[in-house]
Amino acid sequence: MIKVAIIGASGYTAWETIKILLRHNQAQLTYLTALPEECGPVTEIFPALRGRLDLNIEPVDLNKLSDSADVALCCLPHKVSMDYVPQLLSAGVKVVDFSADYRIHDAELYERVYQVPHTDQANLPRAVFGLPELFRKNIIGADLVANPGCYPTAASLVLAPLLKEKIIAPDDIIINAISGASGAGRKAALPFHFPEMNENLFAYAVGSHRHMPEINQILADFTGTPADVLFQPHVVSIDRGITETIYCRPLMNIDQQKLSDLYHHYYGDEPFVRILNTPPKLKDIANTNFVDIFATVTGGKVVVFTTIDNLVKGAAGQAVQNMNIISELPETEGLLS
Amino acid sequence: MIKVAIIGASGYTAWETIKILLRHNQAQLTYLTALPEECGPVTEIFPALRGRLDLNIEPVDLNKLSDSADVALCCLPHKVSMDYVPQLLSAGVKVVDFSADYRIHDAELYERVYQVPHTDQANLPRAVFGLPELFRKNIIGADLVANPGCYPTAASLVLAPLLKEKIIAPDDIIINAISGASGAGRKAALPFHFPEMNENLFAYAVGSHRHMPEINQILADFTGTPADVLFQPHVVSIDRGITETIYCRPLMNIDQQKLSDLYHHYYGDEPFVRILNTPPKLKDIANTNFVDIFATVTGGKVVVFTTIDNLVKGAAGQAVQNMNIISELPETEGLLS
Amino acid sequence: MIKVAIIGASGYTAWETIKILLRHNQAQLTYLTALPEECGPVTEIFPALRGRLDLNIEPVDLNKLSDSADVALCCLPHKVSMDYVPQLLSAGVKVVDFSADYRIHDAELYERVYQVPHTDQANLPRAVFGLPELFRKNIIGADLVANPGCYPTAASLVLAPLLKEKIIAPDDIIINAISGASGAGRKAALPFHFPEMNENLFAYAVGSHRHMPEINQILADFTGTPADVLFQPHVVSIDRGITETIYCRPLMNIDQQKLSDLYHHYYGDEPFVRILNTPPKLKDIANTNFVDIFATVTGGKVVVFTTIDNLVKGAAGQAVQNMNIISELPETEGLLS
Amino acid sequence: MIKVAIIGASGYTAWETIKILLRHNQAQLTYLTALPEECGPVTEIFPALRGRLDLNIEPVDLNKLSDSADVALCCLPHKVSMDYVPQLLSAGVKVVDFSADYRIHDAELYERVYQVPHTDQANLPRAVFGLPELFRKNIIGADLVANPGCYPTAASLVLAPLLKEKIIAPDDIIINAISGASGAGRKAALPFHFPEMNENLFAYAVGSHRHMPEINQILADFTGTPADVLFQPHVVSIDRGITETIYCRPLMNIDQQKLSDLYHHYYGDEPFVRILNTPPKLKDIANTNFVDIFATVTGGKVVVFTTIDNLVKGAAGQAVQNMNIISELPETEGLLS
Repeated sequence: MIKVAIIGASGYTAWETIKILLRHNQAQLTYLTALPEECGPVTEIFPALRGRLDLNIEPVDLNKLSDSADVALCCLPHKVSMDYVPQLLSAGVKVVDFSADYRIHDAELYERVYQVPHTDQANLPRAVFGLPELFRKNIIGADLVANPGCYPTAASLVLAPLLKEKIIAPDDIIINAISGASGAGRKAALPFHFPEMNENLFAYAVGSHRHMPEINQILADFTGTPADVLFQPHVVSIDRGITETIYCRPLMNIDQQKLSDLYHHYYGDEPFVRILNTPPKLKDIANTNFVDIFATVTGGKVVVFTTIDNLVKGAAGQAVQNMNIISELPETEGLLS
Repeated sequence: MIKVAIIGASGYTAWETIKILLRHNQAQLTYLTALPEECGPVTEIFPALRGRLDLNIEPVDLNKLSDSADVALCCLPHKVSMDYVPQLLSAGVKVVDFSADYRIHDAELYERVYQVPHTDQANLPRAVFGLPELFRKNIIGADLVANPGCYPTAASLVLAPLLKEKIIAPDDIIINAISGASGAGRKAALPFHFPEMNENLFAYAVGSHRHMPEINQILADFTGTPADVLFQPHVVSIDRGITETIYCRPLMNIDQQKLSDLYHHYYGDEPFVRILNTPPKLKDIANTNFVDIFATVTGGKVVVFTTIDNLVKGAAGQAVQNMNIISELPETEGLLS
Repeated sequence: MIKVAIIGASGYTAWETIKILLRHNQAQLTYLTALPEECGPVTEIFPALRGRLDLNIEPVDLNKLSDSADVALCCLPHKVSMDYVPQLLSAGVKVVDFSADYRIHDAELYERVYQVPHTDQANLPRAVFGLPELFRKNIIGADLVANPGCYPTAASLVLAPLLKEKIIAPDDIIINAISGASGAGRKAALPFHFPEMNENLFAYAVGSHRHMPEINQILADFTGTPADVLFQPHVVSIDRGITETIYCRPLMNIDQQKLSDLYHHYYGDEPFVRILNTPPKLKDIANTNFVDIFATVTGGKVVVFTTIDNLVKGAAGQAVQNMNIISELPETEGLLS
Repeated sequence: MIKVAIIGASGYTAWETIKILLRHNQAQLTYLTALPEECGPVTEIFPALRGRLDLNIEPVDLNKLSDSADVALCCLPHKVSMDYVPQLLSAGVKVVDFSADYRIHDAELYERVYQVPHTDQANLPRAVFGLPELFRKNIIGADLVANPGCYPTAASLVLAPLLKEKIIAPDDIIINAISGASGAGRKAALPFHFPEMNENLFAYAVGSHRHMPEINQILADFTGTPADVLFQPHVVSIDRGITETIYCRPLMNIDQQKLSDLYHHYYGDEPFVRILNTPPKLKDIANTNFVDIFATVTGGKVVVFTTIDNLVKGAAGQAVQNMNIISELPETEGLLS
């Protein structure tokens, strides 16, 4: 039984992490921290936890962290996280960081994309990228895991085998993505006000979404050659879930059966990847850590349909999967039920 | 063709009013005003109006109002409205006011309920209560109409005939009301943030909703005897529409047929009241000015089901209905299509 | 570790039961049955189960049942269930039955309400009513449990203490209930077709819902005196969850604090009842086995707000709770995470 | 004032047409027909019409049609329509046909795509394709208009100028489309049952949607050279509206400004096309006849975002637009309010 702290326990990814840990038989939540104004009983922030979790959210205290936790799941936002992670590490806990701060290897690229100085470059080389289906070997034994972004998780799992096997052109890839509104976080704002967002769907971040360089880096790391994707996200009036429809130009003769074989070859033993033979439905992965994939060839393109729950495989579930790996627990613990 | 101004043109009731006026063949929108920070092309506030309305929202100017409008539809919030209405009247326009500021005859009661001093008591006696189905005679010829609240509109139309005919006890009336989330207005706040509000339903304002005294006053005005209702609102993850299920103790032998006859007697000629013989569905009144009513007797109670669109018959539609009356236009113009 | 069969494994309550059992550490799903046309891999009926459950749904075979299960959770619909339950019992398994067939003690009353002959009256006395918070003592040791209806669960837990302590009049109780659309089951029909049901809300079963006599029976059983409630359900465009707002006439001087004390007295030790001091929100109980209760006094009435998830505490969760009790497992196992 | 009949008045497109015609000042609904089992007061099929339209739906009678209507809007489904249209024409009315039966010029292609013999090839040459923004000149004076499909309307308006000006490659076009669930029609079926469809999104008709050849034909007709699009539709838990994100390979140096100029050049005078400079939001075109378009260049592709209401510009609104044209009425009548 490992002991787990959540740093930044007031947002949707923390909430989802808590729910997963309540089902986890070999991990125990021991410590929740947040900004002073968000402290108090966790049930005041998340009333749905009444009767399920009796913990206070407290201001972070490194001594207490050190005493009470083996692993810290750091749910702080981008830019804030890198102020805390070095302290968490120095307190002697392993860290799975949900933010983007340790995902991009190249500090300069990070700074260009996120428009802030990277203030913890010392720990960048220490961070491993936490996409187990592609980089499991690196994750084992790590003490700092950069948990992937939601969109990149789905896109990269689809594209990595196709690029590795040189089935598709690396510079002609279109990722049309649609996310539920929880992807925008828990801060109230007019575009996400219920009467505005309900029964609505729109594209955003045209040509500029921060997940684009992350996807390119994952694919380059995995395949050894650079990739350059066109990634276009949309948001829709659904609570949770991401659908990505990915269009690629094939470099060889390929058909649906061979694509199915390819994915079975790469992911057939993966507990959280499901290879389908019809397009996946968003609701079938809601509240799960699964990635559903259906690939086919049509109109001269390789077209792949994939779905994940942005809060689970796209955040909290994958973080627990990483936590399991670095804590030498069964990788699926807490995540299949 | 009358000329119409909207004062406070940045919220949901103004938006709905604009849409109705675009369908109105005898009224023309000539002037839109709002706070300085909300000014500019109306299509910046409401992009859906591009190609339909080419007007700027401007800071209010009484001379311009005087020149450009016959009627002002004042969509300002409670407490703000009474600062503007006297000026609008002095500019020589007729006013339909959407706020609560002129609904309660008794300034002391208003001040107790709304917790502010009433700063325009001089105009209170001038204001008529704009529920045409009950008070049409008063409205004709008026130059200041207090447009009713959304919940009171539905409840009062149901209860007035029952109380007038002494069919039910005036002190044992339960109004269970459920509103779509647009009823909360256009200001972003956590409880109405999409991921919080979606797939949700909850009660609010227990024992204290400001519409309770308004309902009591309407019923007393119409029947001549005081009423005392228990009004309990809820909000649900739907854009628009109010469902009220009203439970009353009968004082006489009554059945569904007699209730149907009663409502036909009172409202048979009303263009916006529909007497049904099954429970109304919310979606059937969405985007319309109708009030649907189904009354029956069960479990020893008179039970009445009613639905209105909170933004139409509960606000903008009723305001246009009142505008039509005071402008001597056909009452249904713009409201049946 | 007990072995569990699900009889009638193709609807929403079976689906929910499967999900709960996947989290249950002391029960294992061993056998799924359904009508022949619904047989095959469970993942064909519920694609969301791919990767989580590798079982076939098979036509029921009593020998196989006998060999493979200790308990049968019978998710068959009303009227069908009583054809199977005697066989299940004779196969030597304990049964928790989700249907209404064993809920009503009085076969004549059942026949009047459900409009069919009761074909298994022999087992009626053997059946205990599975509302643990009120009848736990009866349930322990039982081998046939009638799992309560969704609406009655919430209403009865609210009303039982009020009636037992003679705080309210037993013949002046109004239950205004609103359910998510999954309450209507999995059979496609026009009123529940997405474009019809979405953004909609309506009352149904006026004066005639089958849960009314069930509620009255529970209350009479618990308090020893008859009750007669007015129960009015509505359905809303939400997946899951029931909100009941219950209005009662007090027989004594009572206030919010005393009501809170009362519920704490009755349910303070109950793991699935949460006593709140503000109205509960539907989303806070979604996917949980909790009953949230907030009681107050307003407008001369005791008003109680309660929420449950119709598929969990209203069906599958409560069934597992009952299964735990009759199997001598910890009552909360599988239900708090 | 023209007189209008609706043939097949029981589905969503008919319902939408009725609502538009209620706002139309120069057209009057005179005759509604449907299959015998759907006949009776129109308010039984569409209760929302109570108080707004007092007509019966009747079995079609050609003599009555001849006497009572100038134009027939034929809302019958594919394959049924071509049985009726010749009769409607012979009754002396002009016809706007909503089905696909007269959209495809080439009967063989139609038969391949729709898998039935075309039984009215005689009238195929008489039919004009009713996309006014591209083919207005043909429509004027026609007596049989094939109203376009919902998806092709949006896609073709986006692509026609790009292809006409040879800005993009005609054989490397990806149309990622998402429709609200009303696009599936009014027949209840499990995938569209509320608890299945709600909070859901999925792709369908992979590689085979019938709108693909329709789009190709429109583009070939307009530009004179063949096009070959990859069209991939999805359905989402929203009532109405289509979002298409279209990815094209540019054949020349192009930027956002030039694209904006291009669309203004082609559509600047079109009353129903709005050229934006940010991605359109679905809700901004709901219930309107507008097509919103935003085009940009990113990732080496021309990317165009477009939205229409599938029931209005994608069906009923465009049909009324066509009706206005062939009836020599103002083209926007009934469609801008």
